[in-house]
Amino acid sequence: MNKELALRGAVQIFSEDSLLQRLASGKRLKIKLGADPSRPDLHLGHTVILRRLKAFQDMGHEIIFIIGDFTGMIGDPSGKSKTRPKLTLEQTRENGESYLQQVAKILDTQKSTIVYNSEWLNKMNFADVINLASKYTLARTLERDDFTNRFRENQPISLHELLYPLAQGYDSVAVQADVEVGGTDQTFNLLVGRELQRDYGQTPQEVITFPLLVGLDGKEKMSKSLDNYIGIAEPPEIMYEKAMKIPDTILLDYFVLTTDIPTEQAKTAVQSDVIAAHKMYAAEIVKMYHGESAVADAVNRYNTVAAGAIPTNMQVVEISQADYLENGGKIGLLDLIRLAGLAPSNGEARRLVQGKGIKIDNKIVEDVQLQLNCENLVISRGKNKFVQVNFVGTTTFQSEL
Amino acid sequence: MNKELALRGAVQIFSEDSLLQRLASGKRLKIKLGADPSRPDLHLGHTVILRRLKAFQDMGHEIIFIIGDFTGMIGDPSGKSKTRPKLTLEQTRENGESYLQQVAKILDTQKSTIVYNSEWLNKMNFADVINLASKYTLARTLERDDFTNRFRENQPISLHELLYPLAQGYDSVAVQADVEVGGTDQTFNLLVGRELQRDYGQTPQEVITFPLLVGLDGKEKMSKSLDNYIGIAEPPEIMYEKAMKIPDTILLDYFVLTTDIPTEQAKTAVQSDVIAAHKMYAAEIVKMYHGESAVADAVNRYNTVAAGAIPTNMQVVEISQADYLENGGKIGLLDLIRLAGLAPSNGEARRLVQGKGIKIDNKIVEDVQLQLNCENLVISRGKNKFVQVNFVGTTTFQSEL
Repeated sequence: MNKELALRGAVQIFSEDSLLQRLASGKRLKIKLGADPSRPDLHLGHTVILRRLKAFQDMGHEIIFIIGDFTGMIGDPSGKSKTRPKLTLEQTRENGESYLQQVAKILDTQKSTIVYNSEWLNKMNFADVINLASKYTLARTLERDDFTNRFRENQPISLHELLYPLAQGYDSVAVQADVEVGGTDQTFNLLVGRELQRDYGQTPQEVITFPLLVGLDGKEKMSKSLDNYIGIAEPPEIMYEKAMKIPDTILLDYFVLTTDIPTEQAKTAVQSDVIAAHKMYAAEIVKMYHGESAVADAVNRYNTVAAGAIPTNMQVVEISQADYLENGGKIGLLDLIRLAGLAPSNGEARRLVQGKGIKIDNKIVEDVQLQLNCENLVISRGKNKFVQVNFVGTTTFQSEL
Repeated sequence: MNKELALRGAVQIFSEDSLLQRLASGKRLKIKLGADPSRPDLHLGHTVILRRLKAFQDMGHEIIFIIGDFTGMIGDPSGKSKTRPKLTLEQTRENGESYLQQVAKILDTQKSTIVYNSEWLNKMNFADVINLASKYTLARTLERDDFTNRFRENQPISLHELLYPLAQGYDSVAVQADVEVGGTDQTFNLLVGRELQRDYGQTPQEVITFPLLVGLDGKEKMSKSLDNYIGIAEPPEIMYEKAMKIPDTILLDYFVLTTDIPTEQAKTAVQSDVIAAHKMYAAEIVKMYHGESAVADAVNRYNTVAAGAIPTNMQVVEISQADYLENGGKIGLLDLIRLAGLAPSNGEARRLVQGKGIKIDNKIVEDVQLQLNCENLVISRGKNKFVQVNFVGTTTFQSEL
């Protein structure tokens, strides 16, 4: 059973025969997954593979998470990418810890191994790098899709970029991996590891690739930076609501790749009533990450908010009425938004109002100059963020004594 | 004067204006030359640039010889080249010493600096290499002629080969070179040094390239492995004889690139009487490397040997007649050749005879089975190696007493 679960959704296996032999051998296999040290927030896209690893772990195999802190600590030496800052050793360790804490929602981290590739890559000197680089040709390296395209289009490729697949591949040599899993976008790098192991006299690892989960936009791979994700640490109601927005055409993929619901059952559900299928999926992932008990509230809240109602259970912010005496007991809209914690500044508050993102007592407000009486109200930003504002303190105006 | 001499024959200068400014500045410049640590035998091809360095030295500048021992110690990690064995630290140091001793025939090594690039390249770790590699693009690297051709013809280029120009270029950064000189085949590498210095915040070095001296075959660059060379440590008579064989069409290049004889004078000599010009050139290089006193003998010997005569002054080998008593006082031809020191083994002696390379008393001998009386004779190999063999000891045969 676990074997089927471990390979559920797999796109390619290099090579299947050999993998099945190793699995049948009874040996405890080392299953490698490379993790990016710079983005520690996990979403459903990450779980596709983590859940496969869980199945391998349940079969008794050793899961090895490799935190790629070596390249993280170099940053982008060409200085082209501003989104890739140089990380310190401490930051990579913190990110590694945070990664493991989140991973713990899916598999048993006590039974897993976490290693940092700077441990061996930092020890390599120039001669070692030349030796490593001698094992791979330029032509093979340029077969990687992104290199092929950039080379063809005369876009610059810095020489150091050619070394990264080797560094990543060498990780397999260092941990003597039996199997490496990864997304289809990693196929090239995983195969480099396979070939380097052969060059270094090891049995080449088996490589299994899995699909990339498409995000809520229905186009791009799920990622935090594209804001098309469902985070596994998000509150139940947010998770539920986002799940309801998954495009119909890819809902079945979400079932197959991120839940244990049998494929046939999911297929039938999606084909017979896609809205009911969404609800079934949304309830399933809330259950998976927050427990059965969280489902009813998430459903309830979705039904009321989706119907435009104000939720009953919301954050309360108190504002002192006294502060607005001199203004005739009136508070400016932008101040109100900021004090309610819905915007960090009045400038940002202004933009929200202009974007029709702010409602008071469930009605959109559009006048940034609006002055309101200091009377209790509900203010909301977007569909999900509701704040109950209560004015406290002096309620009647006192003329000078 | 020295400035003209320093630039005599230069093919390209990057950039001439800037070089002239630096030379005029009065600053003591660091002039870099990269040396190959694996082939310590210097020939006239090497002197083209060494003599230019001598002129720079006479102007008061510092000559820095960089022994490229770093790559020498790595050898050929791809294992493709059997002619590039891995050198030990000791071997590279010995080769460096030997190089310097030979260089001393041309310039003042006391006033020069010799450094080994393993000193800084061995200290670089993987992160340093990535940083270095990030400064250069693949497209620029593939502009190097040999890479361009191999890439176009789908011949494999190992990734480590792309790193070598960077290592060599980084040498300029390490020694803070003001000027680098080299053969035209090194142009690309020298320019990498120039660009890396800029990237590392230094003033880019000036680059001067000089022609490659064509060897005695009139086709290929002079090199020991092609046996088309005149070594600067060869005996006067060999030097003289080889010089007489320089193809007429390239004799002028030899004058310009390897002597101080003014170009116009050389041109006139070559045009008016090419044989006399050869003699003039041959006498000049014997004088340069062995002194005026060696010229007459070399000329003499050339005239007699070239006329087929046996030289008067030759090596003498003594062989004990007694050793051949049991053979009826006869010595086999192959033994004779070996004992005369003309071959290391009888097998090699056999090959020499079969190749018609052996003469006795100036006549070619062709019978490898030949038995000779133990009588004094002159045996020779090729045109240059003559040995007087004297048989010593018992001269009359004694029957058993």
